[in-house]
Amino acid sequence: MSVTAARGFRSAGVAAGIKASGRPDVAVVVNDGPLQSAAAVFTSNRFAAAPVEWSRQVMRQGEIHAVVLNSGGANACTGPEGFADTHRTAEHLASSLTAVGRDTGAGEVAVCSTGLIGERLPMDRLVSGIDAAVAALAESGGHDAAVAIMTTDTVPKTAVMSVEGFTVGGMAKGAGMLAPGLATMLVVLTTDAIATPQVLDSALRAAARVTFDRIDSDGCMSTNDTVLLLASGASGVEPTRDLLTDTVTAVCADLARQLIHDAEGASKDIRIDVVNAASESDALEVARAVSRSNLLKCAIHGEDPNWGRVLSAVGTTAARFDPHHVDVAMNGVWVCRAGGVGEDRSLVDLSGRDAVITVDLGAGSESATLLTNDLTADYVHENSAYAT
Amino acid sequence: MSVTAARGFRSAGVAAGIKASGRPDVAVVVNDGPLQSAAAVFTSNRFAAAPVEWSRQVMRQGEIHAVVLNSGGANACTGPEGFADTHRTAEHLASSLTAVGRDTGAGEVAVCSTGLIGERLPMDRLVSGIDAAVAALAESGGHDAAVAIMTTDTVPKTAVMSVEGFTVGGMAKGAGMLAPGLATMLVVLTTDAIATPQVLDSALRAAARVTFDRIDSDGCMSTNDTVLLLASGASGVEPTRDLLTDTVTAVCADLARQLIHDAEGASKDIRIDVVNAASESDALEVARAVSRSNLLKCAIHGEDPNWGRVLSAVGTTAARFDPHHVDVAMNGVWVCRAGGVGEDRSLVDLSGRDAVITVDLGAGSESATLLTNDLTADYVHENSAYAT
Repeated sequence: MSVTAARGFRSAGVAAGIKASGRPDVAVVVNDGPLQSAAAVFTSNRFAAAPVEWSRQVMRQGEIHAVVLNSGGANACTGPEGFADTHRTAEHLASSLTAVGRDTGAGEVAVCSTGLIGERLPMDRLVSGIDAAVAALAESGGHDAAVAIMTTDTVPKTAVMSVEGFTVGGMAKGAGMLAPGLATMLVVLTTDAIATPQVLDSALRAAARVTFDRIDSDGCMSTNDTVLLLASGASGVEPTRDLLTDTVTAVCADLARQLIHDAEGASKDIRIDVVNAASESDALEVARAVSRSNLLKCAIHGEDPNWGRVLSAVGTTAARFDPHHVDVAMNGVWVCRAGGVGEDRSLVDLSGRDAVITVDLGAGSESATLLTNDLTADYVHENSAYAT
Repeated sequence: MSVTAARGFRSAGVAAGIKASGRPDVAVVVNDGPLQSAAAVFTSNRFAAAPVEWSRQVMRQGEIHAVVLNSGGANACTGPEGFADTHRTAEHLASSLTAVGRDTGAGEVAVCSTGLIGERLPMDRLVSGIDAAVAALAESGGHDAAVAIMTTDTVPKTAVMSVEGFTVGGMAKGAGMLAPGLATMLVVLTTDAIATPQVLDSALRAAARVTFDRIDSDGCMSTNDTVLLLASGASGVEPTRDLLTDTVTAVCADLARQLIHDAEGASKDIRIDVVNAASESDALEVARAVSRSNLLKCAIHGEDPNWGRVLSAVGTTAARFDPHHVDVAMNGVWVCRAGGVGEDRSLVDLSGRDAVITVDLGAGSESATLLTNDLTADYVHENSAYAT
């Protein structure tokens, strides 16, 4: 499953001692081909971590042979030394793979790191971990890799879909600092479809735009976000661009839902549907403003259908709408009509895990959906003690 | 003290039964002149409450004879009926004052409301409360008025400053949904200085820009924000525009600090100083991004000098800076130098109530300061149960 569901891939996950807990913290994914096409999207945070800067350079060729990922440290804001560490990490994996007959150059290795910002990685442990992971590489290694990239995640996240002779699978991590800018997480997707880097790039960007870019747990954008899509071509099938895009999108949407469901401290999954907007970007701006209201997220946590907190967030945007024509529903009950009091708020049942907030702007026919979660005391506790 | 520190003003605060708790909930402030000059700034939220829409109209004349404020209900998103309620409130205070010899028209009465959004006010109780407040009006009524406008505030907020023969005083409320857009709170300021509405307006806008517009407790912008400045001229002193502006600014800054100090659930007062920016607006954009990082606010709550969370927020802005030239200090220790690791983070002492975060953008000579507070489990608890 996971990154090894598609043919042509091996992976492994090992414990290298980077995490104080002793849990698995190094993963390697290898594309055995025959193709090594790849596409990627990265964080838009201007303090991009060293591994992001490295992988951006690697991606210029549109070809990746292997990926090494570590949890236990983000290698972000670590200066030239941190970049040298990433370079050495790629060199080491390349030479280790070459030594076992899988000829690879450092420039064909993507690197991803996640964990605390502003601390150097323990390179001796990471290098040993890479050796152990290379020795453990297997076509059944997808689960181990998904476990090794977890930080505050409570469960590994994997997804897979097979259609018309090819497969797309993937793994993701991310539970906090989870707001996309493009995407705030580490994700590795693999497929055995035949596809050029250009087709992969177009499929990945289209998929990320409506999945990872539409989840927002806590409004905080990571320095390390990376989503990789690798194609081995091992199925011998070359799907149409549309079919590949649809399949990649379905796998990304599945992973995105899993990320929000496991977000730090979350007790409610909240879906925000903005409908009848003048444009998709208006709808998205409104959805994002609503998703970032701490007050609303606390209210949903308390199962309180406080629609005033929805409107007060909507009212901060520049989206086109007339305040007197805005309706809001919570779990299907239109508690706000025409910008004022609608149905009785006591009719709203928020006792389940899922909450749906619908904002009808009455300004057009475009829409957007964004996933978020509630704000809880557990989130505060977890993030008050993260570095210790 | 408070709104009655300046000569020419009377006020009162009474319990009218609008709040379920039975605590004071109606305040009236009367300007006995000889002048009735006034200025005001209001929320920029597009779902402005009925009292905001009313008071905006009243302010067109630049003259206010009296203000009526209620807690226990925001009268926001209540439609035409809510606006009619506000109109009736102003009419009732005007006729009550006229009946006791203080000739006033409804168009000279400002109205402010605060509390839950989306519910009608109990007008019978409000009207009775206005009668009681008018009967209780006194030159010593400033404290009672400040108490009557409290919602989740734990203490009344008042400030006063006297210079060169005139006085500026004021009261404020606001503890949640506290992010300025212009200002997210109710504030009434009074002065016995002689000043035209134009001079008052210029003084108030200058003051609010660097005080109420530079605090951000939870990023949530209210529908009811109103800051009023009334001048009676009763001192006989006409200060220069600069002196009046400086004095109003000092009183506003005092009240702004009190608002942040009493913000919902706060255990730390955080000051964010952004220095060496290319422009003041760049500095403010960076300060605001930092102040809205839930992760950073949790870290400060946990007394964790997690400067990576500062940089990751700075990195989401469009401000001019080179990521390799950014320094960050926490309580005076430069934990981040040149976008990388600086002094040992263990040197930072965050055990006190006050935390200062300094971001040096190394891009110019402009600066801005913004006040915020930490994010705590108490904030979540308070806002999960607000409507119940």
